[in-house]
Amino acid sequence: MSDAYPVSDQAKAAQAASRVLANLSTAVKDAALRRMADALLSNSALILAENEKDLIANATLSPSLLDRLRITENRLKLMAESLSQVASLRDPIGDVLDGRRRPNGLWIQKVRVPIGVIAIIYESRPNVTSDCIGLCLKSGNACILRGGKEAINTNRCIARVLIDAARVEGIPDGAIQFVDTPDREVMAEMLRLDEYIDLVIPRGGEGLIRAVSAMSTIPVIKHYKGVCHVYVDEYADLGIAESIAYNAKVQRPGVCNAIETLLVHSSVAGQFLPGLAAKYREAGVELRGCPVTQKLIPGVTAATEDDWYEEYLDLILAIRVVDSLDAAIEHINHYGSHHSDSIVTANHANAVAFARGVDSACVFVNASTRFTDGYEFGFGAEVGISTNRLHARGPMGLRELTTYKYVIYGSGQIRE
Amino acid sequence: MSDAYPVSDQAKAAQAASRVLANLSTAVKDAALRRMADALLSNSALILAENEKDLIANATLSPSLLDRLRITENRLKLMAESLSQVASLRDPIGDVLDGRRRPNGLWIQKVRVPIGVIAIIYESRPNVTSDCIGLCLKSGNACILRGGKEAINTNRCIARVLIDAARVEGIPDGAIQFVDTPDREVMAEMLRLDEYIDLVIPRGGEGLIRAVSAMSTIPVIKHYKGVCHVYVDEYADLGIAESIAYNAKVQRPGVCNAIETLLVHSSVAGQFLPGLAAKYREAGVELRGCPVTQKLIPGVTAATEDDWYEEYLDLILAIRVVDSLDAAIEHINHYGSHHSDSIVTANHANAVAFARGVDSACVFVNASTRFTDGYEFGFGAEVGISTNRLHARGPMGLRELTTYKYVIYGSGQIRE
Repeated sequence: MSDAYPVSDQAKAAQAASRVLANLSTAVKDAALRRMADALLSNSALILAENEKDLIANATLSPSLLDRLRITENRLKLMAESLSQVASLRDPIGDVLDGRRRPNGLWIQKVRVPIGVIAIIYESRPNVTSDCIGLCLKSGNACILRGGKEAINTNRCIARVLIDAARVEGIPDGAIQFVDTPDREVMAEMLRLDEYIDLVIPRGGEGLIRAVSAMSTIPVIKHYKGVCHVYVDEYADLGIAESIAYNAKVQRPGVCNAIETLLVHSSVAGQFLPGLAAKYREAGVELRGCPVTQKLIPGVTAATEDDWYEEYLDLILAIRVVDSLDAAIEHINHYGSHHSDSIVTANHANAVAFARGVDSACVFVNASTRFTDGYEFGFGAEVGISTNRLHARGPMGLRELTTYKYVIYGSGQIRE
Repeated sequence: MSDAYPVSDQAKAAQAASRVLANLSTAVKDAALRRMADALLSNSALILAENEKDLIANATLSPSLLDRLRITENRLKLMAESLSQVASLRDPIGDVLDGRRRPNGLWIQKVRVPIGVIAIIYESRPNVTSDCIGLCLKSGNACILRGGKEAINTNRCIARVLIDAARVEGIPDGAIQFVDTPDREVMAEMLRLDEYIDLVIPRGGEGLIRAVSAMSTIPVIKHYKGVCHVYVDEYADLGIAESIAYNAKVQRPGVCNAIETLLVHSSVAGQFLPGLAAKYREAGVELRGCPVTQKLIPGVTAATEDDWYEEYLDLILAIRVVDSLDAAIEHINHYGSHHSDSIVTANHANAVAFARGVDSACVFVNASTRFTDGYEFGFGAEVGISTNRLHARGPMGLRELTTYKYVIYGSGQIRE
């Protein structure tokens, strides 16, 4: 088993395997992914039994946390389908991204290659284990997984089943590493192994992500939180504005691309806000507002300075009336998390000014912020969403798990 | 002056300016760059007088260090020409890198934008001041510069001249920041300002780069060193091999893309090495070798394990005879610095296997490693060379100082 030795040995073995993985053919990787999908299903009794151990050991958790932890036959089927789907995605490795012939005859090619070794740190959802193993394998990266202690029996079992299935198809030993301890010291040690691990992707709440970032000497791709906005411009179609503002808050309030703050231009606020407020309240949304909002909507609590920074992840919305497009852009750049923000406007110049001025990974014009998602963007997969400014920004699919190298073909050129 | 307040205020001001800079037109940026070039020349007496102060204060430095520090009329002219040349390069900002229309009508565009605020930490070459200010401005980034204490009068003067010239053309105050103290505590504080500074590029020796990386909570793009290789394959054209191996070591031994180790396949070593060794020795190259090399070339010192890791930056070369292409690839991946490596071969399969197997930023086939350079790659400028695996890898030009954001145009789409 590749999880039987110290984490530094695991990382070293992952690096050695990554050099082999980088040059495996697409056919080998896809065959492994399909066999791994089958193995999940043929080992369902085993996996469910291990999951039962975790459920019993954590019986005092809240019902919603237990639900995250629980694997059912149906969820296992979805995990297997997800692996098969990744097998059917186009392999990004080997893409020639750019190239040119130089005057001296050198022929330069910029070629897409895997990053190398990717560490995934996650919490209690066991599907992350299979999803991340699949995405890393398809993109030619070795991976090293460290999940939450609540799911350790389940995660260990899934990892073993997948490692064994992968081996049959010729995936090198070491390519998939599972850190078989919830010890935080081991995680801390792992996050300092920058000699072997090239990238860390934490998946979980803001607390986990901040802890990982603080400990890691390895680059971390992440978003801490999603403080997203819809701005209703003075030139908005108010019907569209209502539909988008409602959808972006209510359709799924607990996710990062839902909005926390609604900004409305003062010239339309009186006409727009009371009707929308009634709809929000029907949906159970608690409203907090600036003084102008409070005048327009009776019974709205005063929003404090802290509210503008807050990610509620709940049916709560802060509303602010602004006097200009510039004020809206400034609010978003100052209080937001540079994740996803949308303007509703029929005015072209304002749409362009917003798209240019808002410093976020995803800037929408006349659409809900809820579309920030690898599947919605057509990537076919999602590893996470990044608000980093370097490497990957926005939804991350397979391509965002790659880097490039230059291959330069010559015929004896030397530098004069 | 933008250098009159604490470094955290400078970084904050740079961030505010970066939001304006990001949307400045190319015409404004280019006019500023041309005025800045003129200002260097029209202020030459002032700059040379300040440089004289630094030369006097550091009179005990070695002649080569003093030469690095010295500004002459001619060097100032080259700095001005470099700014004008950057003005003539194509502006990368606003490039649409990718895009697609989704089935629901959402039109997704991936647009190139500046990174934001870039810190440059450098040593005693004053031309870095003007080069980096020019490259950051053209790519729409605010910059914050911290140079070596030996050149502080010169650097301060150059920065002031350039800031004043830029202001006349409408570049926002704060876009160019000069840290006017050699205090290492201030540098340490600066390297923790990850709230305001997005990227750090250290330019200098390995010691500086390691110190900056250890202190920084901001992403650092860098290469520690260049342990580069030429591998002479069993199918090499030995004439080409000799020319490349000689050029890569001798033409400019003190730079990162010169080779430190020569690998030769055992089936051609006896025929190849003695003649090349004679040429190297004529050029004053000290040779260190593996036992087989020592047998083939009389008088070669034994290479130790440490030699294979060493960046000599000098006329010293380690030579190892290997029994296979795989052994060469393994040596390079294990001992090298993932910078630039070259194979000389006439065999297509070996060329491809080397290009795929060597895990370096730049892999050459039948060409000298000395071509790893932004100008030689046709980028028109060079900020440095990266051996990072994330964001930029290899030579960095203007495009490598950018990131992207997604702009998504809709017509009222909401998520179901």
